[in-house]
Amino acid sequence: MLSGPLEGVIVLDFTRVLAGPFCAMILADLGAEVIKIERPKTGDDSRAFTPIVKGESAYFMSINRGKKSVTLDLKNPKGREIALRMGEKADILIENFKPGVMEKLGLSYEEFAARNPRIIYASCSGFGQYGPLSEKPAYDLIVQGLGGIMSITGPDKNTPTKVGSSIADIFAGVFTAIGILAALHHRESSGKGQYVDVAMLDCMVAILENAIARYVATGVTPEPIGNRHPSIAPFATFKTQDGHINIACGNNELWRRLCVALNRPHLYEDARFKTNADRVANWADLEPLLQEAFIECPTEKWLKEFDDAGIPAGKISNIADVVKDPHVLARDMIVNVVHPVAGNFTLPGIPIKLSMTPGKIKSPAPVLGQHNEEVLTEYLGMTPDDVNALEEEGVI
Amino acid sequence: MLSGPLEGVIVLDFTRVLAGPFCAMILADLGAEVIKIERPKTGDDSRAFTPIVKGESAYFMSINRGKKSVTLDLKNPKGREIALRMGEKADILIENFKPGVMEKLGLSYEEFAARNPRIIYASCSGFGQYGPLSEKPAYDLIVQGLGGIMSITGPDKNTPTKVGSSIADIFAGVFTAIGILAALHHRESSGKGQYVDVAMLDCMVAILENAIARYVATGVTPEPIGNRHPSIAPFATFKTQDGHINIACGNNELWRRLCVALNRPHLYEDARFKTNADRVANWADLEPLLQEAFIECPTEKWLKEFDDAGIPAGKISNIADVVKDPHVLARDMIVNVVHPVAGNFTLPGIPIKLSMTPGKIKSPAPVLGQHNEEVLTEYLGMTPDDVNALEEEGVI
Repeated sequence: MLSGPLEGVIVLDFTRVLAGPFCAMILADLGAEVIKIERPKTGDDSRAFTPIVKGESAYFMSINRGKKSVTLDLKNPKGREIALRMGEKADILIENFKPGVMEKLGLSYEEFAARNPRIIYASCSGFGQYGPLSEKPAYDLIVQGLGGIMSITGPDKNTPTKVGSSIADIFAGVFTAIGILAALHHRESSGKGQYVDVAMLDCMVAILENAIARYVATGVTPEPIGNRHPSIAPFATFKTQDGHINIACGNNELWRRLCVALNRPHLYEDARFKTNADRVANWADLEPLLQEAFIECPTEKWLKEFDDAGIPAGKISNIADVVKDPHVLARDMIVNVVHPVAGNFTLPGIPIKLSMTPGKIKSPAPVLGQHNEEVLTEYLGMTPDDVNALEEEGVI
Repeated sequence: MLSGPLEGVIVLDFTRVLAGPFCAMILADLGAEVIKIERPKTGDDSRAFTPIVKGESAYFMSINRGKKSVTLDLKNPKGREIALRMGEKADILIENFKPGVMEKLGLSYEEFAARNPRIIYASCSGFGQYGPLSEKPAYDLIVQGLGGIMSITGPDKNTPTKVGSSIADIFAGVFTAIGILAALHHRESSGKGQYVDVAMLDCMVAILENAIARYVATGVTPEPIGNRHPSIAPFATFKTQDGHINIACGNNELWRRLCVALNRPHLYEDARFKTNADRVANWADLEPLLQEAFIECPTEKWLKEFDDAGIPAGKISNIADVVKDPHVLARDMIVNVVHPVAGNFTLPGIPIKLSMTPGKIKSPAPVLGQHNEEVLTEYLGMTPDDVNALEEEGVI
């Protein structure tokens, strides 16, 4: 009941910042042994990202839990050789450098595969390993812009809006995890690893949902329409006396109950709002009438009324609400870990609940080079003296 | 080179609308045989979603490609028995009913596992199989609201904004795929399947990126801050003469080049904007000064200048731009299929590029019950007469 489904799988993790580390974190949560290779002295760039808690980056700690940290100067021939030898022991390698960097370091898929044909080598990048933009620097903001999601997110058509978390990075991380696990399944029968190429931009195109289908079917370019549903009403966000509320009334019966709960029974009789199609067509009339009702009471009062009436509704939780939400806590989606330097720290939990092999957050994020001796002695048979010598040479 | 890594894996797919179908689509793209079980006569609810192309829903077609459709009345004892017999042949079962529905139908994990202990049974729901909200109806809008992402997305703190695509559903779909594939790996050694429980809300908490870490470290509740970066400037969206542009200047040299390209060299000398920390602190002064420069020229002109100067920048592509973007096309992320009824149709491609087993979009989305005879004869040994009889009885 305790170990994760990927127990025994060894991941060599050359990733930095977000997309790659997020992917490797998922694998670690599911039981894989993830060995994060970091630049000596400074490590992953995100170790410097603010806010800093007792010298440790909150950002870094939040997405590198459960991993081991080994420092390695990949530009040093000895460092490169150690990386390749580690690759002989690994099932999976993940990197998210700009395309071409691993090749220049002499650490391409071909070089690892020559020594270990079973290795699955995943590259996660902004624009992928080929295509006209592949060598451009990729920032989440720029990829969200090019990927179309910003053109359909926002309060109105003049305000294209970035999603508040870096979903281009995060989707690339999760799709890379899927690619790796699919390749792992294939390796069971073929005995061979392969190369996995995932691009943030490709992932943005893949998650546009019905936007492409709608555009192709109608020729109309979708625009941001705020929080309302394009073809169901009322299905939107309203201001309340003290905040906001989301309402989802997908049929006439729910519409009737809403009119009663809002103390606006006449709206249900109003010919402009008889059917869902009417309410969508006359939304410009309907929205202000509903808004002036919602503003009369605080969110919690409405939620209570709507819950009693069976009307789907919910508040807009802020982060402070989320971390103490009883349902979120009941699902172990907020987890406390004790970091050796930063002390008590709170992390999001594991969103994949497996009955037999649930996985777990094995450990807090490592401090830089924490597992140098452990990993190099265990995997490469070095002695502590060998490790010390490498450290003195600046290789690790 | 042609087959997907999941070739030979059989998926019994009871899902409707978005989260579950998205998960099953990923598995189909990667080579799995996905048999979609639908209600006779009407099928998946999303078959009725607009826009409709020659009688077929664009929405449905966009996320059900590569699957086979079998109709089955699960409330009919014969229908249930057929479902259980199909489960004997399947590796994976996916469902996204409200928790409890499959149990009521006599189609719980236990019932399938009793006949096939190797089956991996995944439930994808709004709030998960346990927890105080688990039986509440889950709409993407409401889950985005409860999950915190809306509280950090939007142009300003008073305008919490829903992400324009249904990312609560979509993330649940991709995390379910990861859970399934991890369980599939575990089955190789254990010989046993297991139950996978993924909730849309859990997934929203998992992808808040640094928001939880920032809140925990600082006690400050994150708010929507538009498209700018909280700690890097200028890293934001600006209006141009004809649209918008995203700019990402992460260091002083890029800042210098930007001032030159914008024909505002004096800004580089301005003491208020010397360092990144200065520019972040004095953003309220800086933003309008930059905005009045950007508005002078159209987006393409700026992109050309910034590209020449090596300044990371990009446009905000709308959906019409995305489907003809040369890079997107070069990555096969826009794919044409020929649907037997709707004709030529355009879909997003596969964002996971595997070198040995790339997978493919095997077929357009099925029409309702298209594969009844094929599947029931092949998997359950029925004769065409048996299938006709079931159809006459209304079982399929």
